[in-house]
Amino acid sequence: MARRRLDACYLSGTDPHRSEYLCEHWQLRRWFTGFTGSSGELVVTPGEALLWTDSRYFLQAVEELRGTGVRMMKARVPGAITPAEWLSAALPAGSTLGVDYLSLPLETFRQFHQASERCPFTMTDLAEAIGEAWPGRPPLPGQPLYEMDADLAGQSRLSKLERISEILKQKGAHLALVTALDDLAWTFNLRGNDIPYNPLFMGFALVGPEGNRLFAGRNLLPSALAEKLAGEGVELLDYGGFISFLSALEGKNICLDPVTVNTAVWKALSGKNNILEMPSIPGALKAVKNGAELEGFRLAARKDGVALVLFLEWLNCHAGEPGVTEYTAARKLDAFRAMQAGYRGESFAPLTGVGEHGAMVHLSVSASNALPLTRQGLLLFDSGGHYNHGTTDVTRTVSLGRVNPVHKRDFTLVLKGLIALSRALFPEGTRGCQLDVLARQFLWENGLDYGHGTGHGIGHLLSVHEPPVSIRKDYNPTILAAGMVLSNEPGIYRQGEYGIRLENMMVCMAAAQTDYGTFLGFETLTLCPFDLTLVDRTLLTSGEKEWLNLYHRRVRKELLPLLPDKTARFLQLLTEEL
Amino acid sequence: MARRRLDACYLSGTDPHRSEYLCEHWQLRRWFTGFTGSSGELVVTPGEALLWTDSRYFLQAVEELRGTGVRMMKARVPGAITPAEWLSAALPAGSTLGVDYLSLPLETFRQFHQASERCPFTMTDLAEAIGEAWPGRPPLPGQPLYEMDADLAGQSRLSKLERISEILKQKGAHLALVTALDDLAWTFNLRGNDIPYNPLFMGFALVGPEGNRLFAGRNLLPSALAEKLAGEGVELLDYGGFISFLSALEGKNICLDPVTVNTAVWKALSGKNNILEMPSIPGALKAVKNGAELEGFRLAARKDGVALVLFLEWLNCHAGEPGVTEYTAARKLDAFRAMQAGYRGESFAPLTGVGEHGAMVHLSVSASNALPLTRQGLLLFDSGGHYNHGTTDVTRTVSLGRVNPVHKRDFTLVLKGLIALSRALFPEGTRGCQLDVLARQFLWENGLDYGHGTGHGIGHLLSVHEPPVSIRKDYNPTILAAGMVLSNEPGIYRQGEYGIRLENMMVCMAAAQTDYGTFLGFETLTLCPFDLTLVDRTLLTSGEKEWLNLYHRRVRKELLPLLPDKTARFLQLLTEEL
Repeated sequence: MARRRLDACYLSGTDPHRSEYLCEHWQLRRWFTGFTGSSGELVVTPGEALLWTDSRYFLQAVEELRGTGVRMMKARVPGAITPAEWLSAALPAGSTLGVDYLSLPLETFRQFHQASERCPFTMTDLAEAIGEAWPGRPPLPGQPLYEMDADLAGQSRLSKLERISEILKQKGAHLALVTALDDLAWTFNLRGNDIPYNPLFMGFALVGPEGNRLFAGRNLLPSALAEKLAGEGVELLDYGGFISFLSALEGKNICLDPVTVNTAVWKALSGKNNILEMPSIPGALKAVKNGAELEGFRLAARKDGVALVLFLEWLNCHAGEPGVTEYTAARKLDAFRAMQAGYRGESFAPLTGVGEHGAMVHLSVSASNALPLTRQGLLLFDSGGHYNHGTTDVTRTVSLGRVNPVHKRDFTLVLKGLIALSRALFPEGTRGCQLDVLARQFLWENGLDYGHGTGHGIGHLLSVHEPPVSIRKDYNPTILAAGMVLSNEPGIYRQGEYGIRLENMMVCMAAAQTDYGTFLGFETLTLCPFDLTLVDRTLLTSGEKEWLNLYHRRVRKELLPLLPDKTARFLQLLTEEL
Repeated sequence: MARRRLDACYLSGTDPHRSEYLCEHWQLRRWFTGFTGSSGELVVTPGEALLWTDSRYFLQAVEELRGTGVRMMKARVPGAITPAEWLSAALPAGSTLGVDYLSLPLETFRQFHQASERCPFTMTDLAEAIGEAWPGRPPLPGQPLYEMDADLAGQSRLSKLERISEILKQKGAHLALVTALDDLAWTFNLRGNDIPYNPLFMGFALVGPEGNRLFAGRNLLPSALAEKLAGEGVELLDYGGFISFLSALEGKNICLDPVTVNTAVWKALSGKNNILEMPSIPGALKAVKNGAELEGFRLAARKDGVALVLFLEWLNCHAGEPGVTEYTAARKLDAFRAMQAGYRGESFAPLTGVGEHGAMVHLSVSASNALPLTRQGLLLFDSGGHYNHGTTDVTRTVSLGRVNPVHKRDFTLVLKGLIALSRALFPEGTRGCQLDVLARQFLWENGLDYGHGTGHGIGHLLSVHEPPVSIRKDYNPTILAAGMVLSNEPGIYRQGEYGIRLENMMVCMAAAQTDYGTFLGFETLTLCPFDLTLVDRTLLTSGEKEWLNLYHRRVRKELLPLLPDKTARFLQLLTEEL
C-alpha cells in the first residue's frame, strides 16, 4: 500500500458476477483474513483492517478472526455504518482508495462515489497489486460445460433467447448483459462445475435482437455442444475478452442489472451507450418455474425424502456411538442422497449442529471441530442436494435423547410459524415482507425472534439461494407469483445452548379466484417428517394439528413405496397421527 | 386552452401544502368536475378530460362524474398508468402542458419532467389562467389563530423549535422549510380554522439556527398572541410573501420534505441553495406523542365512548322511526359528542352507511341522498371528534334487525383481524407493511379482502390522517415506534349489499425487553362496545374471546361511571361476557 501510495484498500468479498459462492480464484477476502463466511467486505488502512459481515456470521467471524488483527464490523443491524460511511469519515480529503473494479459491484462503487462527495477521495484499480500480493493465487477455473436437457429445463435455449429478445424489443433495447452466473446457465440451458455446490460456469453473455454472444471459454464446451450452439446462432467467445468487447460498443441501448454488474463492466459501457438499468430479465423469467421444472423439484423432494428418512433411521441407531460426529453425520446424509438416481452432489455446505453448535446459524463444521453426537440434546441439520432434475434445501431439528419441555415449547413455536406460512392464502400483488410475520408471530408473542430471513428463492439445478424473491423482514419489491419456489425456515437460537430450525421448500400456486381477486397459496415440496416427540400438542390449534397430520399422511403416501420394509415401519412410527 | 396554446392541463387536486382536506379556495378539481372525493388528479386535453382516483372512490366518482364528460381513471391498482405516463404517451413532442406550480407537488413535477425526457413537452404556469377561468373563486381563508396550551401539547413552542434547530445543526443545515399545515401547527403550538374538519391554518415557516419565521397572516393572530410569539423570537410575516422571501435566499443549506413541498417553492430555492431533501423533521417528531398528548387522547377516547354509547342507545330506540336516516343519525352522534366538555367538532366528514351504502367505503351522505334507517341490515358508522386535548376516529358496524349468519361470519372475520393486530407483539424496527397481514389473514383465508389500508397515523388535535406512519400493504419506510397513535380498521365490503368495518385507535408501546431485543405492542385507546349479536363465537379462539371480554370489561370500567343509569344498564347488556 505504501509503495502504491494507497490510503486504504477495499475488497468486496464477491466475484465479477456478484456470486454468493466463489471459486478459489476469487477467494480474495478469505485469503487475506481467513474468514470463511459467504459474506464479508474488507477495508484495510495502514493502521487497521476491518471486516464487515452480517448477523449469520457474527460468532463465526470473531472466532476465525482471532489473532489476525482484523476487527469485525456488524453489517445490516440498526445503527450499523457501511464501509462507504466508514471510509468517508476515516479518510482525509485527497486520499486514494484501492479497489478491484472487476469484483466491485456497481452499487458499492456508487456508494463510494457518493461518500467521496462529502470527503473527496479518488479510486484506483488494485488488480495488478493483488496479483503481486498473492503470487500463488489459483487460476480461474475451467471445468467443461454440459447441457441441461430441454425436457428437464422445460424450455429450449432458443425459445428462452427469443423471449428475452421480445422483451428487449418492447423496451427499445439492442441488447442485454447477462452478468449473474445462474441467469447465464439458465438462459443457455448449460451447466458447469466452476464453483463449489453450484453447477455454474464462469461467463458473461450479450443477448438480444442483435444476436447472442456467450463469453465462456470456447474450449470448455464439448465440440458437439459448441457446434449445436453455433448452429443456433450463439457466437462463442472467450471469458477474458468480455470487457474489451464491451469497450468497442457505442450508441447502443443496453439493459443491465445494477445489482450484479461489476464496475469494470459498467465503466466499459458508460458514457458511450444508453444504459437501461433494470432487474435482470432472465432473472425474472427463471424465478417463475415452468411445469417441467416443478415436476423435477417434486421428484427431487421424493428422492431427498427417501435419503432423509434413511438418515433419521441411521441416526436413531447410531447416534452416541464412538466416532459419530456432526461431520460424519453430514457425510452419511450425503451418502444416502448419493444412493438416489440423478444425484449430482450437495447444493451447499451442510449445517449440522448439535447443542450449542445448532445456535451458530451458519457454522459449517469440519472433521476437526465437529462435536460428537451423544444421546442427548437437539441436532439441527440443514442440507440439500442437486439432482439432474432439481435442487433441494431442507432443515429438520430432532431430539437425540430425553425431551426437555423448554425444547418442546421452542420447537412448537417454530413449527407453528412454519405451518402458518405454509397455509397462508394471499392476494396477487403480495410481497414477501408482508408474509414474513406469519412465520415469526408466535416467537414474537414470546419475546423471541431469529436473525435471518424466513424464505429465499431456490434455483432449478442452479443456486440454492436464488434472487430476486424472498420472504424477509426487509422490503423486497419482488411480487410473489405462481411458480416461484421458496424456502420456509423459521428458527430459534439459544446462544450456547441449542438451535432449532425447520425448513420446507414450497411452490407458490394459484389457490382461488373470488370477487376480491386471485388468491395465491403454497404447495409444500419437501417430504420429511417432523420430530413429533418435540411437539407440544397443547400449543397447537386444531387447524395446525390437521395440517401436520395431512402433511405426514402425504409424506407416508409418497415415501413408503420407495423405502425398504424396516425403514417404512420406522417412518410409520415417526408419523403417527396427532 | 386554445388561446393560451395549451395541449393539456393538469390539476393535482391538492393545495400548496399537499393537504388532504382543502379550503374552498383550493377546491379546483371539485369546481371543475364536481367530484367531491379527497383524492383526484385531473388531466384535460382539447378532446378529453380524465380524473384519476383510487379504489376508495371508484363507485362515487362514476356516480358524481355521470354526464360531465369526465372519464374516471383508476389509480394505484395493478396495471394502472399514472397521469405522467398517460401524458407522455398522449402528447405529441413539442406540446405544452399547463400546470399550477403552487399546487403541483414536487414529486408530480418530477414525474412529468421524467416523462418529458421520452417525449419532449414543456410546462407552463396556469395560475393566471385559473383566475380567469374561475371568476367566483373563493378567497383564501383567513380565520383567526389560537394557541394550543403547552400543558395539553406537552411541550412548549420554544422547546420544539430548539429541538428542530439541534437536529438541523447536526445535519449542517441553516434552516428547514415547514410546508405541511399540520407540521406547522404542531411546531408553533398554534391552531386555526381554515380547513373543514382540520384545526389548521394556511401558512409556511422557516425554522432553524438562523431564526424562526412564520408566514401566516400577521393580522390573523390576536395581538397578545402575536406579541408572545415576537417575544419568543418568532418573526411574523404574511402568507403571500413566502415565495418572494425564498427567492432572496442564496447559499443556504435548506432542509425540505419533497413529499409536501410544492413546485413553486422548490423553484424559488433550487439552483442557488444546497437543498437537503428528507422527511419533515417536525413530522417525525410529532408522530411520537408525548405523555400529555397521550393523556389527552385517552381522555378524548372516554368522552367519545360516552357519546358512542349514548348514540347506540338512541339507535336502539329510534332506528326505523320516520325521518331517521343515515344523515340524521350522523348529526345525532355529533350532538352526543357536542355534549362532552372540550368538544371542537367532527374530525372528518362522518361515513354513515346502511346496507349497500356501507359498501361504498368513502361515500359521505348528505341530507338529500341519505337512506332511512330501517329495522334491518347493518349500519356502518365511521366518525371522530376533535377535543381540546385530542382527536378520535372510530368505526363500528351494528345490526339494526334480525341477524343473518353471513353477516355474522363476515363481522367475525373482520373482528378477528382487528384483535390479531391489537394483540401483536413485534420487535423494534418493524414497519407497518409487515403487520398488515395480521388484520387481513382471516379474510384472505376466505378469499376476501379490503381495498384500503389497515391503519393510519392520527394527529393530536391536528389531521385525522397523519403521515408518516401507516399499516398498509404498501411499503412505507417509517418504523413503528412507541408513542405513535394509529388506527386499526379492517373491513369487508359486499358491493350492493352491505359493508362492515371495525376501527379502534391504538398507541404503540414498549411491551417487553428480552435477549432478542425490545418488543413493542399496542394499547387500545377507543372505548366502544362491539355488537356481540354479530359475533360468531364458534369462529373465535379462546385467546380472542379473552381479548374481547377484557376489552369490554375495560369499556365498562371506564364508561359506566360517566353514564346516566339507564344508559349504564344498556352498556352492561351490550358487553356481557362471552
